[in-house]
Amino acid sequence: MTLSTPGPTLGVVGGGQLGRMLAEAAAPLGVDLVVTDPTDGCPAEPVASDALVGDFDDVSTIHTLAQRADVLTYEIELTDPDVLEQVAEETGTPVHPAPETLRLIQDKLVQKRRLSEAGVPVPAFRAVDSEDDLREAGEKLGYPLMLKARKGGYDGRGNVPVASADDVAAALDSINGPAMAEEMIDFERELAVMGCRGSDERDTFPVTETIHREEILRESVSPARASDAVEERARDVALDVLDSMSGRGVFGIELFETSDGEILLNEIAPRPHNSGHWTIQGCHTSQFEQHVRAVTGRSLGTTDRRAPTVSANILGDVEKRQRATLSGEDAVFETPRAHLHWYGKRDVYELRKMGHITLVGEDESTAELLGDVRALRDTLTFE
Amino acid sequence: MTLSTPGPTLGVVGGGQLGRMLAEAAAPLGVDLVVTDPTDGCPAEPVASDALVGDFDDVSTIHTLAQRADVLTYEIELTDPDVLEQVAEETGTPVHPAPETLRLIQDKLVQKRRLSEAGVPVPAFRAVDSEDDLREAGEKLGYPLMLKARKGGYDGRGNVPVASADDVAAALDSINGPAMAEEMIDFERELAVMGCRGSDERDTFPVTETIHREEILRESVSPARASDAVEERARDVALDVLDSMSGRGVFGIELFETSDGEILLNEIAPRPHNSGHWTIQGCHTSQFEQHVRAVTGRSLGTTDRRAPTVSANILGDVEKRQRATLSGEDAVFETPRAHLHWYGKRDVYELRKMGHITLVGEDESTAELLGDVRALRDTLTFE
Repeated sequence: MTLSTPGPTLGVVGGGQLGRMLAEAAAPLGVDLVVTDPTDGCPAEPVASDALVGDFDDVSTIHTLAQRADVLTYEIELTDPDVLEQVAEETGTPVHPAPETLRLIQDKLVQKRRLSEAGVPVPAFRAVDSEDDLREAGEKLGYPLMLKARKGGYDGRGNVPVASADDVAAALDSINGPAMAEEMIDFERELAVMGCRGSDERDTFPVTETIHREEILRESVSPARASDAVEERARDVALDVLDSMSGRGVFGIELFETSDGEILLNEIAPRPHNSGHWTIQGCHTSQFEQHVRAVTGRSLGTTDRRAPTVSANILGDVEKRQRATLSGEDAVFETPRAHLHWYGKRDVYELRKMGHITLVGEDESTAELLGDVRALRDTLTFE
Repeated sequence: MTLSTPGPTLGVVGGGQLGRMLAEAAAPLGVDLVVTDPTDGCPAEPVASDALVGDFDDVSTIHTLAQRADVLTYEIELTDPDVLEQVAEETGTPVHPAPETLRLIQDKLVQKRRLSEAGVPVPAFRAVDSEDDLREAGEKLGYPLMLKARKGGYDGRGNVPVASADDVAAALDSINGPAMAEEMIDFERELAVMGCRGSDERDTFPVTETIHREEILRESVSPARASDAVEERARDVALDVLDSMSGRGVFGIELFETSDGEILLNEIAPRPHNSGHWTIQGCHTSQFEQHVRAVTGRSLGTTDRRAPTVSANILGDVEKRQRATLSGEDAVFETPRAHLHWYGKRDVYELRKMGHITLVGEDESTAELLGDVRALRDTLTFE
């Protein structure tokens, strides 16, 4: 390949924080980013070459994006794979990862079926289209179980724990659409592996421990506090997942480590993922640079970890949507090896992801690092 | 301080590669960058919030920039300190580093006098306004000596070696303006220290060895292959230089290490500098992030080095100005721990700085690292 200016243009459906961090990573490689987002003044806008305003599934906007781009990708699953396929056909602009992979991942039931058939270990699950289905699932899988909307879930939305047969009707009501039931995993810890498919190679980043509360990621810890055998198994499962996908790009692969050290696949995101933000400072190649390399047809970078690294999300701590003003962040700037990443969102609301802090380790244990980043995060407030 | 969106806007006079790398570093901190540059489509444009087109000393453009910005800085010395001072007064927007510092640095004779008075060791020098002055300088300082234009020099332009009294007339002709003569230093090696002045603190990055050819920086090596005592002395001189400056921001401080281990100041740049590009991957805080922190009034970040790191400039290797197409860069993408930084310039000409490669070390000696990055750089060509 060659490098020139203007370089290849990467069209990204979605201009949130993932688009913003993709743009930051793309510039040194000579790749221009153009994004589309429904919000004028989206997070990626200040660092992207251009930001088009349009819905994630709006054919006309995505068609315009594809005409301006050498390759299309997406940083949000809410885009429509049919639209991407149609636009790719009309314009000749390739889409990575492949729209069929997005389609597969969007339907959690189809995703689990396909991966299970491919030999990837998954929690026991069943399709649920009626109260009878859900009651039968309760009998087979046991209570409590997890009821999941097949489509559209995000940050725990669309996931409803079902404690007993008495809750069946209410749970189905709140999902209000096609669903699946999954056994509730009594996990030892949650893990995530960022994987990447390149032109003719695939690789994984080091295994990361992820800590959720209210089903929203709070902290990521790498290395995970898991045994070498568990890490090895997690990596193997991630590679099997990558082999079941098509097209190029980065995938966020969320896993359970069960109490007996088994690995089960939880969910997949066909894009850079919150659990990989620590790679910006923690690895020689970040997940964002890796995604840009992959989708533009470059070689993948080394995924080696440079140092133990943790990150903590900065989430909205206010009840009502309001203009965002974060205070307390001086402590982050004053802490050696702490890095602030602000997403550029104007408004804050409860649990909205507004930024993250990464803390790079030296001689501390990962438990100490985690304690330190939590303490820093807890100095911040939007109130 | 607090963080919100839109965050503080940093107005930057100059939109070349330094402006581009400032923008890449500013976004995670929530700082928006607006640049002014004479060139439409300047390197910083794709990653800046906005790029105004105007000359570096155009009052009206810089006035507009200042009105949009919370703080002004510059990434090129060619801007006019009087204009900056006037605009700061008219708009109330502070300028960092202070215009008086820029004025001091722009005139190499004034710069050397002031630093010499402040106790900073400098090569012997004399003002040169006539052939007689230059002949007298030759007698006092010895031949060969270096004749330097007092103003406007850049990448060796404006520096003329004078071999003997016979060359006096020709040398003065080629400078064509106020000049100074400096003893020619028979240096052991050249060193550079990136320093930074914050609100009420100052700090230096690790000492870097710089390798020039035809007075243009080719490679930077950190740690420098110098003794601990020399590094310590270089750091002390750099701190003395910082104390002679005013305003906040990063300074590139170029030094000679003489054959007997003394340190002499060569030149100062009141901005991020080519010899500090390795800090992007090599240090916990890059020189660009440090500059953004300093001029926006944030605490300085730690300047600790993460690993031995070298970088090599990608320079134009064509005789005539032409559209730039670099080939051979696949080797950079395929080398673990090698990082490409493309500056986004459309045209290439002989010795134009088009990008750089950084190579982060693991167990290699710095000599090996330097050999490796040179080999990589030598695979690249615009021909």
